[in-house]
Amino acid sequence: MNKNYNHLCAQEARLYRLNHLQEMSSWDQATLMSKKGGRSRAEALAELSGIIHDINSNPKVEDWLKKASKEKLDFVQECNLREMKRKWKRKKAVPTALVMKKRIAASLCENEWRVQRPANDWNNFLRNFKPLVELCLEEADYLSDALSISPYEALMDGYEPGLTEKKIDEVFGDLKTWLPTLIKKVVKKQRKEFVLDLEGPFPTKKQKSLCLEIMALLGFDFASGRLDISTHPFCGGVPDDVRITTRFDKNSLLEPLFGTIHETGHARYEQNLPKEFINMPVGQSRSMSIHESQSLFFEMQLGCHPLFLKKISELIVKTFGYQDAFSHDNLAKLVSRVKPSMIRVDADEVTYPAHILIRYEIERMLIKKEMIPEDIPSMWDEKMNFFLGINSEGNFKDGVLQDIHWPEGLFGYFPCYTLGAMYAAQWYKILETKFGKDSIDRQVYEGNFENIFTWLRGNIWHLGSIYETAELTKRASGGEDLNTSHYKKHLESRYLYSNL
Amino acid sequence: MNKNYNHLCAQEARLYRLNHLQEMSSWDQATLMSKKGGRSRAEALAELSGIIHDINSNPKVEDWLKKASKEKLDFVQECNLREMKRKWKRKKAVPTALVMKKRIAASLCENEWRVQRPANDWNNFLRNFKPLVELCLEEADYLSDALSISPYEALMDGYEPGLTEKKIDEVFGDLKTWLPTLIKKVVKKQRKEFVLDLEGPFPTKKQKSLCLEIMALLGFDFASGRLDISTHPFCGGVPDDVRITTRFDKNSLLEPLFGTIHETGHARYEQNLPKEFINMPVGQSRSMSIHESQSLFFEMQLGCHPLFLKKISELIVKTFGYQDAFSHDNLAKLVSRVKPSMIRVDADEVTYPAHILIRYEIERMLIKKEMIPEDIPSMWDEKMNFFLGINSEGNFKDGVLQDIHWPEGLFGYFPCYTLGAMYAAQWYKILETKFGKDSIDRQVYEGNFENIFTWLRGNIWHLGSIYETAELTKRASGGEDLNTSHYKKHLESRYLYSNL
Repeated sequence: MNKNYNHLCAQEARLYRLNHLQEMSSWDQATLMSKKGGRSRAEALAELSGIIHDINSNPKVEDWLKKASKEKLDFVQECNLREMKRKWKRKKAVPTALVMKKRIAASLCENEWRVQRPANDWNNFLRNFKPLVELCLEEADYLSDALSISPYEALMDGYEPGLTEKKIDEVFGDLKTWLPTLIKKVVKKQRKEFVLDLEGPFPTKKQKSLCLEIMALLGFDFASGRLDISTHPFCGGVPDDVRITTRFDKNSLLEPLFGTIHETGHARYEQNLPKEFINMPVGQSRSMSIHESQSLFFEMQLGCHPLFLKKISELIVKTFGYQDAFSHDNLAKLVSRVKPSMIRVDADEVTYPAHILIRYEIERMLIKKEMIPEDIPSMWDEKMNFFLGINSEGNFKDGVLQDIHWPEGLFGYFPCYTLGAMYAAQWYKILETKFGKDSIDRQVYEGNFENIFTWLRGNIWHLGSIYETAELTKRASGGEDLNTSHYKKHLESRYLYSNL
Repeated sequence: MNKNYNHLCAQEARLYRLNHLQEMSSWDQATLMSKKGGRSRAEALAELSGIIHDINSNPKVEDWLKKASKEKLDFVQECNLREMKRKWKRKKAVPTALVMKKRIAASLCENEWRVQRPANDWNNFLRNFKPLVELCLEEADYLSDALSISPYEALMDGYEPGLTEKKIDEVFGDLKTWLPTLIKKVVKKQRKEFVLDLEGPFPTKKQKSLCLEIMALLGFDFASGRLDISTHPFCGGVPDDVRITTRFDKNSLLEPLFGTIHETGHARYEQNLPKEFINMPVGQSRSMSIHESQSLFFEMQLGCHPLFLKKISELIVKTFGYQDAFSHDNLAKLVSRVKPSMIRVDADEVTYPAHILIRYEIERMLIKKEMIPEDIPSMWDEKMNFFLGINSEGNFKDGVLQDIHWPEGLFGYFPCYTLGAMYAAQWYKILETKFGKDSIDRQVYEGNFENIFTWLRGNIWHLGSIYETAELTKRASGGEDLNTSHYKKHLESRYLYSNL
């Protein structure tokens, strides 16, 4: 019975188990590993990657996939097979020699970038980056041929399967028409606002207990996960043992708190993936954008919701004692403060998409061979000025060199951040429509998220990768595709029309 | 150049890297893993075991080993090859089918033991234990044939390579002649002593900082290791990232502290193994007994040394404030309190070896087929009475069922604990002879362990598995083999002739 399909499943189950070891060792590396333990950890992880690679390269897979298509599969099995084929097509498209060459080039580029960035050394960075881009272009060409999509689509497809250039151009094209104006308007509006700064210090231990309390309120399952500390916050581990991290700083309260809420969104998606297919591709999270839509839903739609801030305000006062600055309306002003700046990861909700548009517009041209890496700085300055009114000339460190993605050879990844923000706004809008805005407002105010979570569970979490993103979106949205107007309205209503 | 030897080394290096992943995942499982994460962790670790098994079963190894013997190897390479051959001979001796059968039987026996022990259910335990013992006997026979040693030697050889029955009979035979009398004498002597109990509670956080301080004093390298918490304290991880654990209890101060000192001994051995051969068998710790000799050297020879207790007393007072009971002479009385009891892991230094002798005498007869599992309880009661004057009739829970080793199918392991204690006493005696007792006393009093650690490093730690245990012992002891008289004198002088 379904012999070929079962072979494929057995292989996927193995990969899932090995991925478990990889996730846990990587998590440990980022959180607890001893200072001198790095070399042997890297070697152990490389060994594991090799084993995973060998399993992935099993020459029988092609035949299994072909024959499995003719076996009697049920609906979910069909979806599972579709996902297996997708992964395999991408893997088979690129010659192993190219994969290796790219990995070495990326590793070199990233390694030296760690020194070149603080030294603001664009010229030496370029020397490693140019050959890396060449290899990425080659890879994109191979993928493009195999998948019959454009090279840039082929790269995006690695993070957001099925996303077309037409769609992204439409969505980001629309965004570009109104974002710069919105930023200017918000900055102008906020100029008149009076905001109190929080008065620290905020002891780490108390911050952690506050984070744990809010995670619990947001439904994090502590029997299936933990909160720890790392330099760069992330969500790792496996669905039944999700490891999220944050970074505490005794002078900063809101950043670690909202960072934790963000990771909690990722975590709940993972913790609620369909248990019965958990070790199969179909049981895994849909895509980068959908994942980010969960973290941003938690952080921006719920966490920063002016009504939920009342709850957060209470908890902060309970934990740290009273300050005028802890009032919910002051907190609302603090978390919605808009200030154009050079650094993406520190950006507020309104200027963040501008950073993404800059990356997107440049990487798209690079991959379409409409520009060469040498031209990035001037292009960067021009766009930085256009979107954010910032003069970035000569500051490569806080400009193109600020992020690790490109030095790692990741192109087509950045758009997912803003797609996630757009999806998050759309999910919230759907909930308002479904339950009525007043009712949802009241539930958020009371911290009573059951309806919201039930909806997310049924429409996103529990579906894993059963549907492709477009189908998932339409089913969740009553037939509607991704629609930027929800996102626009969300930003306008929170940043222009709210009366805090 | 040494093609075959190099093949073997490449394989060992792979195994070392995979062992790294295994160690870290097991450590995480015992310390931090989420409650619901157990099943997928077990599956991931089983997958890894399978991969390790496959590498170990590489049929080329036999040929490589044969040909490598004729290659031009230097001294350490020869030793490395000797260790590889040793491991391989053991592995090859036992048919895979038997290994699998034993693993299943042990897993069943251990699993049900977890319920049967609290229920004091010897009869049902016996039902699983009997077939397990049968399989262990079969295994011992195969190993005995392949290694040309007796079946019990063949089992001990898995933990203490090269240990002969002649030697263990001699050593434990001698111990048996004087231990029961010593225990009686010490108990009698201590009856007149006045000891103050410590007054808790002792907050966990302070206990941990005290443990860290003493670990630092004992040379633990925090750049290559950590202290964490687990139900059963252990030393795991890898040499450049050693993970030791302890268990805190706010009503108990000395147990977690001396447990930590014990694990620190294991840790320093691991941290100081020869870096240049770290991923080779020759670079790994010599044996269970030698490992235990390090933990017990730290715990019993250094940690409980009456002069070092002055230092510990100071640190305890600094941490928890003054109590009369914290005086160093009262601490010395507390840590040297002798009280025959049923539980091995709670036993003091003097009665501990009695527990080992009981296990040893019984398991030796079992493996020599001089008795059958049915006879264990009556034998146990008889020996418990002989060594410790305790009536254990009908109490299986705290008798034969107390330890996990036999339910796991481990025979030949228990003796290593007491061999370790004997070696530890011998190392200390050698140091006294080398530097003079007064000088060593002064160094211990000052917490100035540099001479001691330099000696351990040069004579044990840095040697890894270069020498076999007997040779290592003779080289360290100026030609002397393991000599129980040092151990006897240590116990007598600390428990009978000290004037605290």
